[in-house]
Amino acid sequence: MSEDESIVYIGRKPVMSYVLAVITHLNRPDAKEVMLKARGRAITTAVDVAEVTRRRFMSDLTVENISIGTEELPQEVGGTRAVSTIEIKLKL
Amino acid sequence: MSEDESIVYIGRKPVMSYVLAVITHLNRPDAKEVMLKARGRAITTAVDVAEVTRRRFMSDLTVENISIGTEELPQEVGGTRAVSTIEIKLKL
Repeated sequence: MSEDESIVYIGRKPVMSYVLAVITHLNRPDAKEVMLKARGRAITTAVDVAEVTRRRFMSDLTVENISIGTEELPQEVGGTRAVSTIEIKLKL
Repeated sequence: MSEDESIVYIGRKPVMSYVLAVITHLNRPDAKEVMLKARGRAITTAVDVAEVTRRRFMSDLTVENISIGTEELPQEVGGTRAVSTIEIKLKL
């Protein structure tokens, strides 16, 4: 599995859409981990995805690492706006 | 500083209210760390509080640890509802 394929970007879809994406990734023969990436309000969804996947579907899954940060997003009106980000690494 | 005093519970107030609470805690002579706790939609706010405090006000502050979990909240209609939680430990 290449690095890109093992990243699930969390956005505005329902939690279960991303849970399904995570499970699909991890069911590949050589897949051992997946990274969830989110920013802004999707941060809560990312935590939900990690928790629902782990509790309801894959009890062997562990949270390997969580990191937070800030991205500067360019604004249409000019300038930038700071938005918080999260990365959650899940490992089988 | 006792354990209780070093916890900041993040809710629905503006980010800057909690940033101020964190800074106030850490400006005590013997305070070296503070724990942010949040659940549900306030998770995003907790990440914002950590990032804004660190980037704008206290550049020596580091993220010591982040953990996520699930709480079962009792419902008025009976039964429980699962809600995601986050704990962010900040250290000077």
